Amino acid sequence: MFDLTPRAADLVGTMTGFLADHVYPAESLHEEQQAAAGETPGEQHRRPQPAVMEELKKTARDLGLWNLFLPHPEPGHEPLSNLDYARIAELSGRSLHLAPEAMNCSAPDTGNMELLSMFGTPEQKQRWLRPLLDGVIRSAYVMTEPLVASSDASNIETTVERDGDEWVVNGRKWWISGVNRANCELLILMGVTDPDGDAPRHGRHSMVLIPRDTPGVTVERDLQVLGYNPFESHVEMTFDDVRVPAANILGDPGRGFAMSQARLGPGRIHHCMRMIGAAERAVELMIARARSRTTFGTTLVDQGVVREWIADSRIEIDQARLYTLYTAHLMDTVGNRAAASEISGIKVAVPNMASRVVDRAIQTFGGGGLSQDYPLARIYAETRIVRMADGPDEVHRRGVARTELARFDAATTPAPHGVAAHLAHLPRI
Amino acid sequence: MFDLTPRAADLVGTMTGFLADHVYPAESLHEEQQAAAGETPGEQHRRPQPAVMEELKKTARDLGLWNLFLPHPEPGHEPLSNLDYARIAELSGRSLHLAPEAMNCSAPDTGNMELLSMFGTPEQKQRWLRPLLDGVIRSAYVMTEPLVASSDASNIETTVERDGDEWVVNGRKWWISGVNRANCELLILMGVTDPDGDAPRHGRHSMVLIPRDTPGVTVERDLQVLGYNPFESHVEMTFDDVRVPAANILGDPGRGFAMSQARLGPGRIHHCMRMIGAAERAVELMIARARSRTTFGTTLVDQGVVREWIADSRIEIDQARLYTLYTAHLMDTVGNRAAASEISGIKVAVPNMASRVVDRAIQTFGGGGLSQDYPLARIYAETRIVRMADGPDEVHRRGVARTELARFDAATTPAPHGVAAHLAHLPRI
Amino acid sequence: MFDLTPRAADLVGTMTGFLADHVYPAESLHEEQQAAAGETPGEQHRRPQPAVMEELKKTARDLGLWNLFLPHPEPGHEPLSNLDYARIAELSGRSLHLAPEAMNCSAPDTGNMELLSMFGTPEQKQRWLRPLLDGVIRSAYVMTEPLVASSDASNIETTVERDGDEWVVNGRKWWISGVNRANCELLILMGVTDPDGDAPRHGRHSMVLIPRDTPGVTVERDLQVLGYNPFESHVEMTFDDVRVPAANILGDPGRGFAMSQARLGPGRIHHCMRMIGAAERAVELMIARARSRTTFGTTLVDQGVVREWIADSRIEIDQARLYTLYTAHLMDTVGNRAAASEISGIKVAVPNMASRVVDRAIQTFGGGGLSQDYPLARIYAETRIVRMADGPDEVHRRGVARTELARFDAATTPAPHGVAAHLAHLPRI
Amino acid sequence: MFDLTPRAADLVGTMTGFLADHVYPAESLHEEQQAAAGETPGEQHRRPQPAVMEELKKTARDLGLWNLFLPHPEPGHEPLSNLDYARIAELSGRSLHLAPEAMNCSAPDTGNMELLSMFGTPEQKQRWLRPLLDGVIRSAYVMTEPLVASSDASNIETTVERDGDEWVVNGRKWWISGVNRANCELLILMGVTDPDGDAPRHGRHSMVLIPRDTPGVTVERDLQVLGYNPFESHVEMTFDDVRVPAANILGDPGRGFAMSQARLGPGRIHHCMRMIGAAERAVELMIARARSRTTFGTTLVDQGVVREWIADSRIEIDQARLYTLYTAHLMDTVGNRAAASEISGIKVAVPNMASRVVDRAIQTFGGGGLSQDYPLARIYAETRIVRMADGPDEVHRRGVARTELARFDAATTPAPHGVAAHLAHLPRI
Repeated sequence: MFDLTPRAADLVGTMTGFLADHVYPAESLHEEQQAAAGETPGEQHRRPQPAVMEELKKTARDLGLWNLFLPHPEPGHEPLSNLDYARIAELSGRSLHLAPEAMNCSAPDTGNMELLSMFGTPEQKQRWLRPLLDGVIRSAYVMTEPLVASSDASNIETTVERDGDEWVVNGRKWWISGVNRANCELLILMGVTDPDGDAPRHGRHSMVLIPRDTPGVTVERDLQVLGYNPFESHVEMTFDDVRVPAANILGDPGRGFAMSQARLGPGRIHHCMRMIGAAERAVELMIARARSRTTFGTTLVDQGVVREWIADSRIEIDQARLYTLYTAHLMDTVGNRAAASEISGIKVAVPNMASRVVDRAIQTFGGGGLSQDYPLARIYAETRIVRMADGPDEVHRRGVARTELARFDAATTPAPHGVAAHLAHLPRI
Repeated sequence: MFDLTPRAADLVGTMTGFLADHVYPAESLHEEQQAAAGETPGEQHRRPQPAVMEELKKTARDLGLWNLFLPHPEPGHEPLSNLDYARIAELSGRSLHLAPEAMNCSAPDTGNMELLSMFGTPEQKQRWLRPLLDGVIRSAYVMTEPLVASSDASNIETTVERDGDEWVVNGRKWWISGVNRANCELLILMGVTDPDGDAPRHGRHSMVLIPRDTPGVTVERDLQVLGYNPFESHVEMTFDDVRVPAANILGDPGRGFAMSQARLGPGRIHHCMRMIGAAERAVELMIARARSRTTFGTTLVDQGVVREWIADSRIEIDQARLYTLYTAHLMDTVGNRAAASEISGIKVAVPNMASRVVDRAIQTFGGGGLSQDYPLARIYAETRIVRMADGPDEVHRRGVARTELARFDAATTPAPHGVAAHLAHLPRI
Repeated sequence: MFDLTPRAADLVGTMTGFLADHVYPAESLHEEQQAAAGETPGEQHRRPQPAVMEELKKTARDLGLWNLFLPHPEPGHEPLSNLDYARIAELSGRSLHLAPEAMNCSAPDTGNMELLSMFGTPEQKQRWLRPLLDGVIRSAYVMTEPLVASSDASNIETTVERDGDEWVVNGRKWWISGVNRANCELLILMGVTDPDGDAPRHGRHSMVLIPRDTPGVTVERDLQVLGYNPFESHVEMTFDDVRVPAANILGDPGRGFAMSQARLGPGRIHHCMRMIGAAERAVELMIARARSRTTFGTTLVDQGVVREWIADSRIEIDQARLYTLYTAHLMDTVGNRAAASEISGIKVAVPNMASRVVDRAIQTFGGGGLSQDYPLARIYAETRIVRMADGPDEVHRRGVARTELARFDAATTPAPHGVAAHLAHLPRI
Repeated sequence: MFDLTPRAADLVGTMTGFLADHVYPAESLHEEQQAAAGETPGEQHRRPQPAVMEELKKTARDLGLWNLFLPHPEPGHEPLSNLDYARIAELSGRSLHLAPEAMNCSAPDTGNMELLSMFGTPEQKQRWLRPLLDGVIRSAYVMTEPLVASSDASNIETTVERDGDEWVVNGRKWWISGVNRANCELLILMGVTDPDGDAPRHGRHSMVLIPRDTPGVTVERDLQVLGYNPFESHVEMTFDDVRVPAANILGDPGRGFAMSQARLGPGRIHHCMRMIGAAERAVELMIARARSRTTFGTTLVDQGVVREWIADSRIEIDQARLYTLYTAHLMDTVGNRAAASEISGIKVAVPNMASRVVDRAIQTFGGGGLSQDYPLARIYAETRIVRMADGPDEVHRRGVARTELARFDAATTPAPHGVAAHLAHLPRI
């Protein structure tokens, strides 16, 4: 039942040890180093990486826990199935802000490496993909714009115009993550290359590769997510006559929209699996707290309401995990497109589940649950933004309903009361 | 992924046709025949079976859709795994009040046949099990009592005393279903056989087989479930010096509690699977209604709120189905006892899910949704009572929490902040 | 704060005694008499009133608890304000299926008496209103039709055509309540009197008064509400060339829609207040049960989850009561039309609140909570149908949102970020 | 109906103008000044006040919007009733992070001024209360400790020992707010003055007044609340042989617990009213956004789901406001102690309501809703922490349930089925 391959089972074992022996013990230290670091002198909005992260990366790589996310073969890399990787991703979510990056499996680099692996030229791969896979540089994905609804990518207005041997980029972007890391060197930007042409609406955009230090690239300000921002979070930036060589286009011109869709599929499922791991962690913290805390003469864990929280959390997590593993299995067997409705389904179900579980855990901790003393507050902020990132819940629900209606229309035959008496198809599960 | 065996796949196909060709078309007729029937003359609280049910039973048996629930081998019966049967049970739940009975797979007979199959003597099997398996007689299970909390079976007070070659039964029972059917001939009753003995608390009860027409057996009144009762529902009854031969004890004396527990396991999972089928049916009815109904100039199905209902229903059903299939798989592989927490989990999750889904479906139908014109109202009543039957949600949540705490205690090692930094065990899923 | 007038305070006192001394003790008897009664011989779908109800009516009338609902002056009747009556209605809801009728304050007669009081001619009042006010006859309100969406009254298709000195009625109606009571003598029917005329869409309907025994009036079948139906509930009926004198029109021709709207306002608020009383009763039953029941060694009332149910019920009831009293106050001071949004608001909030409270109460009772042994099951069915009756929740939410948007548009001035920086109006509360 | 006095009505009018003309326009500026400010040189954990706040304070004072919270008469101050002030507090909550402080009505200073007004000696009032009332100094309230459950104040362990003419304070405290403001000069600390004495458990604590710069007072670190902290938020601090004169005790020794309870009552209701104002603001922002934003060809405000959010928000806010006003009225008429259950009730109901409303508003804004561009993210963080501050929801629910059970026990008389057939008391509302 959702059985792991032997290779994945080994990795799960290695991973469990890595978390216990290296990652969990590093959490407080990472929080402290991050809090202590200031901006890199002379580089506005750039901050150095906490040193402990580089140590974790080295350990992870030595253990073979490296680039496991990548579903495409690259030299030295044999891909895992979505189902196999899902279990690894869940475990990495138990330390949501350390483990994925330590394993070179964190957004936005993961999606960018996928893009380069699928669509990059040998030269582009050599220059950008190789060091990304080695974890020596970082990247950003530059798509969302403040002035248009980002849930419909065809609205994007930043221009990427051809001028001789160069592309010239002009526009304003926001919610760009990763760009303020010290070793961020690559921006993958989506813009309009054919604004007035004959191409259909979804064929007018392209992606270009922009070195981070190209003149005209400006970080305007940091954006907060709740109160969080400095290191790992988001910025608003402008591109003012930014020029890159013609060879810096990624894939074919006009294929930007299609490539952006391809980028999203595995990303969403990895995201969901990580949130399941985060929810598991929250349950453990909740139980540990409830075991050790006494109020009004009773240990918290002996209060009926707290036991109800624990039980509901277990019931909700297990359903969400199975739903996500099932979706991963569908992606492996029928493909990402045929699994689109289920991908939307987990995108709605899992972050909302994680929100509820983490909220309960926080409540058992009192004020401390919202502070930096436990990973709960960061997880809480993360679950909240994920309900909007990569498409808000409402858009995904619409997608699920559309699929459901199409299945119904394909299957029903009329019957008394104007009611479908029979669906010819079996449920997919 | 949760793959069916070839035999089960065949049965699913047969079942689908049976529903479409025979069961759905019979639903209105069954409702009418049931409404038209009065009590059997001279037999208070007995009503005849609607004729259409006997026809459906014949068809089902001809098609091989018969006794599929039974997990034990009997002459002419080769059992299905829990996982295989789960898919059949789901389909039968699409016509919750007809299909299970038509297939000889309806409570309380299923549990009673299991008891007889597991614990009956050859003579008992010959006299009771054979005609039950043939669907020519029906039975009732007589456990719950009005004066004690039924969620703890060891509270039961009805006495079963030895007097020479007979057992003498005295007591009051309620929520007994099936006893008012015309062909009900057997009562399996649980009572105290060793009230003051040295046996431990859970070793004092036994089960006895009581012919329905034994003197002293009286149906006192019908019990309603919401407004429903006459045919398929529940009664309160008394046993006043009811005498049966010594040979009518089922299994060993003092094993009543253990046998009652054994009876519940598969019953719960079948129950949950049927509710999933019922929820699927409700979604189909909801979509059909929403497709055809216009208010304020808009088809219901084009209203955002209705689409949200459809999407949430799909998301919730698929999670519940996977959770239940997973539990069936656990029962097949690690056994009912080791799957106890998951069995409790689905018992909480599935009926609540079905309640929400059916409630939305009813809302799309307006008043008709609560009437006899659609199966929704009966499903709604069923989902409500199931949240209490076989243990209320609150008791099952306690069980899940207890398991969770035991796992935590077994796995944790202390860490900074008094918080468990690591769970040695992997999640079971 | 929401102070009662002295007269209303007296009535509340009288009412409290009436409930304690007469109504609560009669509940079981009424249930039994109702269950025992058959159809009136020779009169299909007619059943006699339980005798205990006539006794309660006599007592209520003697105590001055009679016709208190009527907001219009009639001979011998001085109206109460909505705010005053709200408190009486709440108390009557504590015995939802007895007290309102015992006080001649039950639907559909209340709305019908209002219509006759407002729009009836002296002759119509003499013939129909007088005996209705005296409680010696009963009536039905015949509006909803099975083939059109009833939440938009202008859809109604039953024809009321002029033929000489008569109106001729043809059509099919359903969800008609009260028509199967033994002493029901009047039907107030809404139909189309000007199907093709020049009148605007909402000016084509009229109401006519039809004696119950007019030829052509046929009760086709009983409709169930969650299994309930025989006595107090709903039927489907046809009108086949039903002829009544021209004088039997109520109010002006073409004013049917407007009159139907006028009928609904106070009805909704009384309905909500009764549901608050029903919820209070459910809390009392829940506490009484929880005080007296022990499971697993603990009294239910000492379990944290049950205490949470009690607290949440109190918090939700008190908010709902205040909201409803406030709405009554608005109706008294600014009028029903200006209070339309709040009337919609309570119509959504109160039945949903009552559903939750009653559901919790049922859960504390186990199976008995769904049976006829307690009033909870009937209340539960009632709360469910009220979420659709007089407009489903979804329609009322739309009304509230529309009002909210209109207030916003009237009040805002543009500001930075395109966000309203200021609302000129104060909140109404 | 909850009528304002003429004075309060005037203040509401003034307040409305103040918000529109001064506060809303200052919000962005305040956010920027706050972000730009660093720590005060040489004073770790001290930051200067944004300049715009001092301007707002001056304007508010000139307008008479000053110290309105204070329920006790002081020279130049005539108190408002709780009901009157509730309306003012609501309006101030519309700009939750500016208006209360601008009006000298923000925690923790408000509670501290109350304590000094009620229990201070003339000298203490002269030295501390006067400048606090003038808004020239700020204060902190030092109660919660990291090592004990803070929801039970009698657990507090910090020692306040008498040594000659001085009190000597030793201990560790956290979640202390306000202490890092530039002009914070007073700490009111609660500790144990009689650890081993004969005093009952709730008679062992006292409060002492500690100048902020007393040797031995150390701010150890900032505590985050969902990523927020630097300026307005919380710290952990230690007291190491901190010595203050004997005259610095507040009120009588041993009365600390009682004074801390007295401090909480009005604070909770003001808090709730502000959250209602914050929720109103969120609805306005939600509507403004939904009016102006188009996705997939539809304006957000025309999507059914968004309209449902708007309607539910209005329905929930109005209920919460009435509940809070009613509680204020009870406090004014029967006193804080007799209103304890309702105070607990609003403490549960209002922050949860505000959480739901703000969550919906954020969802309409996409990522921006969680950023610093709108006040929503800060409100969201505030609503979350308030579900734990001043007692978590679970503790307040227990209080409500306890009151409910006591009322039931006082009122019921036994009846058939062991169920209370009658409650003699009327509901309080």
